[in-house]
Amino acid sequence: MIQTLDVTLEERSYPIIIGRGVLANGALLRPYIKQNKVLIVTNETVAPLYIDTVQSALEKQGVSAISVVLPDGEQFKNWETLNLIFDALLGAHCERGTTLVALGGGVVGDMGGFAAACYQRGMPFIQVPTTLLSLVDSSVGGKTAINHPLGKNMIGAFYQPKAVLADIATLDTLPDRELKAGVAEVIKYGLIRDPEFFSWLELHIDSILARDPEAVIFAVHRSCANKAEVVAADERETGERALLNLGHTFGHAIETGMGYGKWLHGEAVAAGTLIAAELSCQLGWLDADAVLRIERLFLRAGLPVRGPGLGVARFLELMRHDKKVEAGRLRLILLQGIGKAVMSDAASEAQIARAIEARCT
Amino acid sequence: MIQTLDVTLEERSYPIIIGRGVLANGALLRPYIKQNKVLIVTNETVAPLYIDTVQSALEKQGVSAISVVLPDGEQFKNWETLNLIFDALLGAHCERGTTLVALGGGVVGDMGGFAAACYQRGMPFIQVPTTLLSLVDSSVGGKTAINHPLGKNMIGAFYQPKAVLADIATLDTLPDRELKAGVAEVIKYGLIRDPEFFSWLELHIDSILARDPEAVIFAVHRSCANKAEVVAADERETGERALLNLGHTFGHAIETGMGYGKWLHGEAVAAGTLIAAELSCQLGWLDADAVLRIERLFLRAGLPVRGPGLGVARFLELMRHDKKVEAGRLRLILLQGIGKAVMSDAASEAQIARAIEARCT
Repeated sequence: MIQTLDVTLEERSYPIIIGRGVLANGALLRPYIKQNKVLIVTNETVAPLYIDTVQSALEKQGVSAISVVLPDGEQFKNWETLNLIFDALLGAHCERGTTLVALGGGVVGDMGGFAAACYQRGMPFIQVPTTLLSLVDSSVGGKTAINHPLGKNMIGAFYQPKAVLADIATLDTLPDRELKAGVAEVIKYGLIRDPEFFSWLELHIDSILARDPEAVIFAVHRSCANKAEVVAADERETGERALLNLGHTFGHAIETGMGYGKWLHGEAVAAGTLIAAELSCQLGWLDADAVLRIERLFLRAGLPVRGPGLGVARFLELMRHDKKVEAGRLRLILLQGIGKAVMSDAASEAQIARAIEARCT
Repeated sequence: MIQTLDVTLEERSYPIIIGRGVLANGALLRPYIKQNKVLIVTNETVAPLYIDTVQSALEKQGVSAISVVLPDGEQFKNWETLNLIFDALLGAHCERGTTLVALGGGVVGDMGGFAAACYQRGMPFIQVPTTLLSLVDSSVGGKTAINHPLGKNMIGAFYQPKAVLADIATLDTLPDRELKAGVAEVIKYGLIRDPEFFSWLELHIDSILARDPEAVIFAVHRSCANKAEVVAADERETGERALLNLGHTFGHAIETGMGYGKWLHGEAVAAGTLIAAELSCQLGWLDADAVLRIERLFLRAGLPVRGPGLGVARFLELMRHDKKVEAGRLRLILLQGIGKAVMSDAASEAQIARAIEARCT
């Protein structure tokens, strides 16, 4: 069964097409490709698994597909790798009207999307996520970026895809560690705005980890529905969309501080969410029972609930580079309950430091 | 006297503030700066001339200004130099709400604007052009980009500034060669849509080259008015705005083929415009007298009216990377008269080759 969700953004609206085996169905993508040529951006892990399927599906639709295969990992989300995409686009005489297809996880989607945003000042692109994290989060909403040595996702663009093709079957080949990392972002939706979903996850987390198709499809669909709603209401993150960054300011500091690629993004977000929960608890906004519930769910998902020992001073320094800093004050996403996130600069540096200390090794 | 023109783009509208000595008047910029800190992006030629003026003007308004000084020249319009801007932004803890000020010519404006478009997915920026070319053309309209070894301005963004502060006095320090290069873009407005202005230029070209203040101010104002009108009607170049690229597809091929920085952009545009006029004449759209009038004006402006000897095959190969290629066909801006440009893919490759041969050394 194929389900479609719409991200409603006026002339930039697009569908998220979710189903098993949709990768092999070129007719689903054809309406979103203007010309008869695409460039597929993927990585060395995903290419052997899926590139033939996508290429022959497109060829059956009369679309020729060339490809560029990037190295795999967050540590390659930088200028040098991005330039490989531009080299491929120019080498193959791709035009402003050629479509770029990002086939892979969050790193491929972020870089493919950013390359599409910049190439000839903007070419159309399609997200084809192949990890749980990209299926439920990064492929939807048009946030694209690369990292800078001093800060994650510091250089990028808001640039919406023409379509997202989410093939649940790609999760069959996903390593357990990557699956768990994706679950962190799934739990996030429950925490920030969907308490019913959080409760459902408490009941079904084991089924998701066991890759039970029904549980996985429900979790992906519910996550995408949450994401689509938030993005439609606040495309450029001037308000509500910022709530999706729960745990991310702490998490980005972990990723940057440990060296990109050491911690998976979802792992860092899990630990970061626990720090945010701890801080919310210290502020008296969240009771200790709720913190325990959150911790327990992340633990059951096999995710870290403590940050690494970066040291508080270094942690705070890394956080000061975050995009949520305004007029020198760190704005954090905090919790006032399970299902209720808020953005606030109420926490003092001393309070933030205490929460980091309490929740890092 | 200070004159203001508006670029009308709904919530992205902004003023072009034109006058002599406006650089020293910080109160003109203050309304367009949200916080009390800016990063000035400039180059090693412009910095010693104007950075103190701008910095102290802003400081009087309570705005602290840090700066990054780039090497000067089209050959530095690339990733490496762009990264110097990101390093400076992150090193100084600039936020998403900090303003970037691009102080310099077209290269500084294009790179500063592109850095602003990408930093934290978009920070506000202000254009402060200091060359005739950037005053009359590149600082207005939000086209930002860097070059790729295979093609000029291939990687960039449409990203509008919050304001353009155009100080005519900066032209006093401009080398003659740069002044003449700027005149190429001034003549362009006459050619594509303002025949009266073209006739005026035929009468006043010597005054402009002699830097007569009245003639220069008139030419800058009239050029900006033309640019603002076109941009307001077609921000993202889906139609009329493409006409502003008269001579540019040929010109970009010259710049890329000769090595960035050998020919100034305006010089390449002048030679490229003559190739376009030649081709228009061959197609029977423009009479030989008009071609002569155009050639004569460029000659009087001290601009090249013949391209370099790249060889036709190489020239065509370079042109195939242009952004105006659609479905494999080269769309060119051609002339149907002085003051009347059109976009067309009517010319065959053989015809284009003939025009290049006729107009290149």
